[in-house]
Amino acid sequence: MIIVMNGKTSDAHVEKIMQKLHEMGHEVDISRGERRIVLGVIGDVKNLASVPFYAFDGVEEIIRIEKPYKLASKEFKSTTTTVKIKDVVIGGKEVVVMAGPCVVENKKQIFETAQQVKAAGAKILRGGAFKPRTSPYSFQGLGEDGLLAQAGEETGLLVVTEVMSVNQIELVGKYTDIFQVGARNMQNFVLLKELGKTRKPILLKRGMSATLEELLLSAEYILSQGNDQVILCERGIRTFENYTRNTLDLSAVPALKLLSHLPVIVDPSHATGKWRLVSPMSKAAIAVGADGLLIEVHPDPKNSLSDGAQTLKIDTFTQLMKELSPIVWAVGRELGTSAEDDLERMKH
Amino acid sequence: MIIVMNGKTSDAHVEKIMQKLHEMGHEVDISRGERRIVLGVIGDVKNLASVPFYAFDGVEEIIRIEKPYKLASKEFKSTTTTVKIKDVVIGGKEVVVMAGPCVVENKKQIFETAQQVKAAGAKILRGGAFKPRTSPYSFQGLGEDGLLAQAGEETGLLVVTEVMSVNQIELVGKYTDIFQVGARNMQNFVLLKELGKTRKPILLKRGMSATLEELLLSAEYILSQGNDQVILCERGIRTFENYTRNTLDLSAVPALKLLSHLPVIVDPSHATGKWRLVSPMSKAAIAVGADGLLIEVHPDPKNSLSDGAQTLKIDTFTQLMKELSPIVWAVGRELGTSAEDDLERMKH
Amino acid sequence: MIIVMNGKTSDAHVEKIMQKLHEMGHEVDISRGERRIVLGVIGDVKNLASVPFYAFDGVEEIIRIEKPYKLASKEFKSTTTTVKIKDVVIGGKEVVVMAGPCVVENKKQIFETAQQVKAAGAKILRGGAFKPRTSPYSFQGLGEDGLLAQAGEETGLLVVTEVMSVNQIELVGKYTDIFQVGARNMQNFVLLKELGKTRKPILLKRGMSATLEELLLSAEYILSQGNDQVILCERGIRTFENYTRNTLDLSAVPALKLLSHLPVIVDPSHATGKWRLVSPMSKAAIAVGADGLLIEVHPDPKNSLSDGAQTLKIDTFTQLMKELSPIVWAVGRELGTSAEDDLERMKH
Amino acid sequence: MIIVMNGKTSDAHVEKIMQKLHEMGHEVDISRGERRIVLGVIGDVKNLASVPFYAFDGVEEIIRIEKPYKLASKEFKSTTTTVKIKDVVIGGKEVVVMAGPCVVENKKQIFETAQQVKAAGAKILRGGAFKPRTSPYSFQGLGEDGLLAQAGEETGLLVVTEVMSVNQIELVGKYTDIFQVGARNMQNFVLLKELGKTRKPILLKRGMSATLEELLLSAEYILSQGNDQVILCERGIRTFENYTRNTLDLSAVPALKLLSHLPVIVDPSHATGKWRLVSPMSKAAIAVGADGLLIEVHPDPKNSLSDGAQTLKIDTFTQLMKELSPIVWAVGRELGTSAEDDLERMKH
Repeated sequence: MIIVMNGKTSDAHVEKIMQKLHEMGHEVDISRGERRIVLGVIGDVKNLASVPFYAFDGVEEIIRIEKPYKLASKEFKSTTTTVKIKDVVIGGKEVVVMAGPCVVENKKQIFETAQQVKAAGAKILRGGAFKPRTSPYSFQGLGEDGLLAQAGEETGLLVVTEVMSVNQIELVGKYTDIFQVGARNMQNFVLLKELGKTRKPILLKRGMSATLEELLLSAEYILSQGNDQVILCERGIRTFENYTRNTLDLSAVPALKLLSHLPVIVDPSHATGKWRLVSPMSKAAIAVGADGLLIEVHPDPKNSLSDGAQTLKIDTFTQLMKELSPIVWAVGRELGTSAEDDLERMKH
Repeated sequence: MIIVMNGKTSDAHVEKIMQKLHEMGHEVDISRGERRIVLGVIGDVKNLASVPFYAFDGVEEIIRIEKPYKLASKEFKSTTTTVKIKDVVIGGKEVVVMAGPCVVENKKQIFETAQQVKAAGAKILRGGAFKPRTSPYSFQGLGEDGLLAQAGEETGLLVVTEVMSVNQIELVGKYTDIFQVGARNMQNFVLLKELGKTRKPILLKRGMSATLEELLLSAEYILSQGNDQVILCERGIRTFENYTRNTLDLSAVPALKLLSHLPVIVDPSHATGKWRLVSPMSKAAIAVGADGLLIEVHPDPKNSLSDGAQTLKIDTFTQLMKELSPIVWAVGRELGTSAEDDLERMKH
Repeated sequence: MIIVMNGKTSDAHVEKIMQKLHEMGHEVDISRGERRIVLGVIGDVKNLASVPFYAFDGVEEIIRIEKPYKLASKEFKSTTTTVKIKDVVIGGKEVVVMAGPCVVENKKQIFETAQQVKAAGAKILRGGAFKPRTSPYSFQGLGEDGLLAQAGEETGLLVVTEVMSVNQIELVGKYTDIFQVGARNMQNFVLLKELGKTRKPILLKRGMSATLEELLLSAEYILSQGNDQVILCERGIRTFENYTRNTLDLSAVPALKLLSHLPVIVDPSHATGKWRLVSPMSKAAIAVGADGLLIEVHPDPKNSLSDGAQTLKIDTFTQLMKELSPIVWAVGRELGTSAEDDLERMKH
Repeated sequence: MIIVMNGKTSDAHVEKIMQKLHEMGHEVDISRGERRIVLGVIGDVKNLASVPFYAFDGVEEIIRIEKPYKLASKEFKSTTTTVKIKDVVIGGKEVVVMAGPCVVENKKQIFETAQQVKAAGAKILRGGAFKPRTSPYSFQGLGEDGLLAQAGEETGLLVVTEVMSVNQIELVGKYTDIFQVGARNMQNFVLLKELGKTRKPILLKRGMSATLEELLLSAEYILSQGNDQVILCERGIRTFENYTRNTLDLSAVPALKLLSHLPVIVDPSHATGKWRLVSPMSKAAIAVGADGLLIEVHPDPKNSLSDGAQTLKIDTFTQLMKELSPIVWAVGRELGTSAEDDLERMKH
């Protein structure tokens, strides 16, 4: 931590802050210039997190050099964390595709989707039961996960679904293989802590206006409770551009991999809000190093109960899976289907 | 609602979407141009909110003309809503100041603050019990609201504090006069709905990257459950500028007053993150038409348990209250102290 | 300047960078921690601006403590700069209002506007001759400043108009009292340098996505050529919010006054893009400490040649001037009209 | 164009606006609802661009349905424009890589770079002569393009360099094959118009906070003067995220290809500001469909005269070119080197 003070600060005031730092157990290096006095505190400064340095006379700026998260950092653990559920491994050589509808609407819809995305090569079935909607007048989901889990079981797909509140953890936990924390809940710290006490993998979506540091601090909330099965998900950030719903920040993928050991997947559907952009952005996500994709697919978008501007039809999704294969191969990974399937797919 | 279709769309495809609209009970005006076909649906289109128009062939753009919120709108209720708690009225002629520390730390701190902000003219005491912190390593609050309520009662101040989760509503409700929903929870729809079932006023903070429309939709969640005592709060939005922590969007105040009947207050402390900017921005907030202010004050910032770069000391706060008086007067309002106090204050 | 290196950097690599710093004439303080090595260089580091520190092994981060601008800084000159043109002083006790149409359209329009804004209390007439338009199909201005200057002269108003290119400086200079640099040209460094060689005041608008530091660096370009008559202008920044055209960042005013000695004015018209918001934001701008306002006014908006969503009619402008008076007074300033006028105005 | 009026607007006021539209030669469809009256004008509404509709009573919102650009649009020209210079084609099957230093520093530097990037597979040499720098104290370039052109000629590389002002067009034009317009000049309309009169290709960079629509309107300025050789360049937009310098918006590539016929390249160097992110983002750019890359490369970054946090060393660049090959192949394109070279490169 660097404390920048005004060069004209009196010795007494500099002394006061030095004393505070010594009390907290820190050694301090001091550099005096004409316009600035700079105090450097090296090492573990976590106990300084809540010290109100700005209240001390002469302090102009506090610069934190140490990353504020620890368990999520690459320095804490240099090898990539892999999240294993049954035979699926996220964060390994395989690129894992999760696909399904925004919201589970009825048995036919979810069973059809499950069979079709499975056939196309997806490994995990996504779908919302309780659905966070900006407007209270939009369809809010069936409120029960049973159908999703049944569809997953029958087709041999794992299941991921969103949990929106502490009091849903138990119920949702019965039906899902992976808890999804939505962008709007990324800083719902009460929820993160409780999920940290479970032992199921958590798919943590980046908040709409969250920095990478904040995303990793939210992961830290989960990790600090003992659950190290966290999958980060880039899903677009809010910017001034309004052609796309959000701006998918693909640089987040290699950046998170430099900063952290956690696997990173990408959701191109909600980010772009336009189905025509989902395929190219999926390819780019693989090329940039993502460990997986989360894609919205619906067997009959015209009769869907959600807006669906970003929803792929089954055949577009199947086509995308075919086109992904050579890119997955180009970056030295596998698409999580058998080699024969891959070969078969590339033929077309 | 306007549905823009490509001019080359076949009659059959146009017919399909017309049929859907008729089924849903709507009349449609159609304008045909060479490059675009435009369908206009006038009136209450709430039942179209979940129709996946983008899945229909030929659709290029959906433009919603009707505001997606109703109960929160000026059109639904043209007179300003006033929130009355005991003798304090928010949204009336009086400008109401809420002040207090970020987090309640101990009895001495909160009682001293209460007495001093009361003396300076504040009407409501703020303070956090459970505190949402970006880092899990920061001080998280005492987790119990008793002290705040006691300090309020003893000094005759009302009390506002944050509720972070559905399972805190009952406990926090015992101690607070106003529930505060923090920026990070603005789209915690489960929480909003439950708060809508209570009959206490809700201070709803704008999310860090929420549009005004989204803020009003979140208010709608509360209103739609029967609780019409909602106070909106502008607290800064996230932008590229990093000299201030956030960018306080004061145009939100007159804009919200054009769009809605709900009272609007401003939090200049968290928005700017710099105590030197709190006073000028407080003055501007009054001049622009805010119904109140939410200001962070601490009797001894140097020994505070939170960062405090934006915390006012008591004497700075007292000075600010003096300087606010003539501006409050200039916009034809009152500062919520007796006329003598106002006069007294303006003398200094 | 602080250079943060990885704690595992070899002594040889640390030595290499130390040597570079010594060569450039700097003393270095070094702090060694387990995870980080921190080098501090105190004092004038301007000659390090172009050193590619990131190319040296082990370097993780460069943190610049000294502000990158000098002549524009409060540290260089602690008293407020006043810009004097004839009997008008910008940056003094008086709040100066500049008003007029977006574009000069014809003689009648500009002469009428001049008389009416003068009567309402404005001191400076604004208006565009060459007009930067996002679309090449919009009206681009008459391309000649004569009318504006004549209208100014006849009414005794000063004149401000935009200069868009180096080759317009001479022509525009003949007709204007103040050169305006538009937001889109804030980083047109060639233009800034040439304007720095003139001796006319420059009204420098903040770029749509410029930080305060970048705005001051652009001012520095002008100042470094010897022209110290620079007026900064906040005119809204681009954010995700789309109810307003831009987000007027009023915290920029007190922030710039902490960082710099230059006067600061506010343009509420272009920022909000909605005439209903111009009056409240003007009041807020005065309350927050602005030295002046730049307001779009048109005598007959319905027959204007520019979009005009933000244009005030004359009577709305006159009403605004009346309402500004008590706020100007409340912050201890004057509205730049005679005391009698002020009094007269406040009566209504 | 859709004009939304308040439902309570009097017939006389509706009539007034109808009359204006008729005068301007337009037919109008009118839909009347209880809360809104909606006027639809279909067809070419370019002559309405400057009509101040907001000044008419009752008008609430103007919604433009037609794109404001024409020549740049896909509707005007459905086949992709290819820019051909000698044997290099941008916008065809080949992915074209442009590489070189930020600034030309001396003969040795630029000649070495030219030879090495050529050997690695680049087709165009980039480098600045006049350099726009945010700070007036940074190295501003040698101010003369001779060296770049010589280096290009000797190695058989084409040359691209920035032109910053109208009065540089002639000089820069002597030495360059492609004019580059920097992000800061994207809305320097005077410059765009003059460049539109030349017959050299223009590489037009997206402004830091420009929407895609604004980028295409800037292209329209060039196209409308008769120069149809425009290459669009995504180079990162300004967002709140500060780990990267800007946020590279890769969705801009497929979006621009849906909206326009112009070729699109990507600059991953300036966008990310971190050399470690340049390689993964280059791969993603190819996967998403970019027609080329613009990459900063320096033979000796440690002795460079610009900051260089994002500069690739020659061997990193060479390695990147190898790794790009299979991705280029995966998306069905070519890297612009001979097939043997490609094969050779892929072996390593």
